[in-house]
Amino acid sequence: MSYGYFKEQTHHHEAIFHLFFRKNPFAGNYAIACGLGPIIDILQNFTFSQVDIEYLKSLTGNDQRQLFSADFLKYLEKLEFTCDLDAVVEGTPLFPHEPILRIRGPIIQCQILETILLNIINFQTLIATKAARIKAAAGGDPVMEFGLRRAQGIDGALSASRAAFIGGTDSTSNVLAGKQFGIPVKGTHAHSWVMSFPTELESFQAYAKAMPNNCIFLVDTYDTIEGIKKAILVAENLREQGHEMLGIRLDSGDMTALSIAARELLDGAGFAQANIVASNDLDEYAIAKMKKNGAKIDIWGVGTKLVTAYDQPALGGVYKLAALRQSEREDFKYTLKLSEDVIKISNPGSLQIKRIMEKGMFSKDILFNTLDGATAEGLLIPIFRRGKQVYHAPSLREIQAFAKREIEKVPNETYPVELDPLLLKLKLSLMNGAKEQK
Amino acid sequence: MSYGYFKEQTHHHEAIFHLFFRKNPFAGNYAIACGLGPIIDILQNFTFSQVDIEYLKSLTGNDQRQLFSADFLKYLEKLEFTCDLDAVVEGTPLFPHEPILRIRGPIIQCQILETILLNIINFQTLIATKAARIKAAAGGDPVMEFGLRRAQGIDGALSASRAAFIGGTDSTSNVLAGKQFGIPVKGTHAHSWVMSFPTELESFQAYAKAMPNNCIFLVDTYDTIEGIKKAILVAENLREQGHEMLGIRLDSGDMTALSIAARELLDGAGFAQANIVASNDLDEYAIAKMKKNGAKIDIWGVGTKLVTAYDQPALGGVYKLAALRQSEREDFKYTLKLSEDVIKISNPGSLQIKRIMEKGMFSKDILFNTLDGATAEGLLIPIFRRGKQVYHAPSLREIQAFAKREIEKVPNETYPVELDPLLLKLKLSLMNGAKEQK
Repeated sequence: MSYGYFKEQTHHHEAIFHLFFRKNPFAGNYAIACGLGPIIDILQNFTFSQVDIEYLKSLTGNDQRQLFSADFLKYLEKLEFTCDLDAVVEGTPLFPHEPILRIRGPIIQCQILETILLNIINFQTLIATKAARIKAAAGGDPVMEFGLRRAQGIDGALSASRAAFIGGTDSTSNVLAGKQFGIPVKGTHAHSWVMSFPTELESFQAYAKAMPNNCIFLVDTYDTIEGIKKAILVAENLREQGHEMLGIRLDSGDMTALSIAARELLDGAGFAQANIVASNDLDEYAIAKMKKNGAKIDIWGVGTKLVTAYDQPALGGVYKLAALRQSEREDFKYTLKLSEDVIKISNPGSLQIKRIMEKGMFSKDILFNTLDGATAEGLLIPIFRRGKQVYHAPSLREIQAFAKREIEKVPNETYPVELDPLLLKLKLSLMNGAKEQK
Repeated sequence: MSYGYFKEQTHHHEAIFHLFFRKNPFAGNYAIACGLGPIIDILQNFTFSQVDIEYLKSLTGNDQRQLFSADFLKYLEKLEFTCDLDAVVEGTPLFPHEPILRIRGPIIQCQILETILLNIINFQTLIATKAARIKAAAGGDPVMEFGLRRAQGIDGALSASRAAFIGGTDSTSNVLAGKQFGIPVKGTHAHSWVMSFPTELESFQAYAKAMPNNCIFLVDTYDTIEGIKKAILVAENLREQGHEMLGIRLDSGDMTALSIAARELLDGAGFAQANIVASNDLDEYAIAKMKKNGAKIDIWGVGTKLVTAYDQPALGGVYKLAALRQSEREDFKYTLKLSEDVIKISNPGSLQIKRIMEKGMFSKDILFNTLDGATAEGLLIPIFRRGKQVYHAPSLREIQAFAKREIEKVPNETYPVELDPLLLKLKLSLMNGAKEQK
């Protein structure tokens, strides 16, 4: 497509694209915008390397001839990012049809960036939203993200750890994510630790020796109740030496019943402060059910179902052209994507979101077109101007805290997103016009 | 755990671990082993950098004191990979409980590697298997992998493209995967291309000008049947200039009915050789259904549901300790993981797979323990010996061809995987012993 624009000499025409989703993930009532941080890094490093150009030069078409002309490859070699990017800040709750980001600039740049923008925003928004739902189900209990071994590749795991932290998880078992993003790293030992010792008791004793102040014992390798009793024995020894066991971890069986039994055993032995950690295919549904059934769990370890967004492993975010002009001297022509499915008809213009508050809660959002003379102020803020970064991203911890505050303002019912009257009129006239002439 | 082994001074004890899955993904009857290639790269570069060590040094425990001792960090700094790795070659169909790989060496190395091995094998095996199922449903028709925009991160997409190609897809839309792995890159244009022109006809004409020999027109931006007619007009022009349209792409609506109508229109206009490409949330189930209903599709574009393995986005591969000894002068002690769930009880020993053929088809597999004096020959072959690579990986195309041949030998019914008599006896005696004493 980029080559096509270049051959038409329309590649410099100025386009406006929006990235948005059409349905809340997980049949929920919001999504948490996420992914802007990595996108800023990518745009700061937007360039075709010599190796990239050589590869593109090597591509041939169906006729075995070179696919791209020399002048096009020369053009790519010198291409720099010169667009305006506006986006909602990470951690913002958003709703269907609202732009997560808006990009404005030469259409060839907007198109080259389409796929990477979708890849990052789709996945990270999905995982941040899943994490927020899990954290909500846990009712404020700490949630440890344990997903690395089942995540979709190394980067699938890394970016999932980042997005999950923004959505509300408290720590990760992914040490590389800790190193790279400063997320607290937490873990326990595995069954193989226990199996590598002659007895479970010896394995707990050895762990206590290595980590006297950081012991969480996994108690279900052989028999959970017996395992808890051995953990208590070791904890008593630790206490004599001036250390406190942090807790135990359950990873199989009827964890609600086992947690109740464990709490009694621990309290009875004088370890009322010891935490009970649960893990094993947990998600917001399992956590809510266990809580309802009276489980005595203090900390939730969540892996596979969080980092793969198991029950809906993709967000259907799309990227649509909304306006186009040949040069800055002209007016924009508005565009929309028609569809027999009304929900799939996109909005034209340069969209901005106005969020109306009432009694400290979000009341409704109004989409409007900043090209019709309205103010440009709203949830989307300038990130790049003519290719230069004008936004300073907050820390991951600040983003997490912001998301937490904002999620509390989302009402429980379906949230109203309206088009302002001028935008609605523009859209309807375009829909009529488009059907007639195309 | 590594720190614990180090503190116990048992970190050099020699362990044997297996990586395997317990259930075929997608309720199917096999999985395609995948991921060894990237694992070889990782093991070749196994080292803790100075920055890694600094990060680990900075970690503190619950007591705010440094988590790891200086001598441990010093040890990690000098750590080199010295294990034996055996694995089945990529593209091999495997069945539940069969080791995809076996690693033997110092327990500290085996444990440090656990998570990365699981991460890579779990994801790539899952996607290769999904691709094989999709290719089978397509009955040999070309399948284009289109997943980048909905994949789980950049690397989630890259490794999905690699694994999908091994499983049988013919091309990818991910140009970076093309560059990195040599996978053929193929794509068409998007709706935004059409929307950026005043009319659909002009958009097709411009595309034909840029790509005279490589035109696939996306025909459903406004009205699919009208779109097909415009594609034919442009194709007639192309033919006058000595070029042939490759085909059209359908991306919405009742694609079975539309493909039948499209075939008639194309054939009627003299374009019997033009391909009809379909895309839009396709997977093996949708493809099989469309084929059954008489759809006239020549090429399948498959994205989201392939690269995220949408209906089962994680393979539950596990990594279990099977034997351990203090030094090479001793015999191995066998270990297994008990569970009330019999399917979760692991196999002890140093496992190898013997595959029995009958009339050119796989007949049954037998797992045996190479430590009991049996031959070591089987599906697992040496990849590393004492940390040195002894295996030369075939090209991606060779792996793909191998997988294709092997998949044809998998019988349709549930496949028998047996334990040889000595292994079964060993396992039963360990199960009895373990229950009594632990």
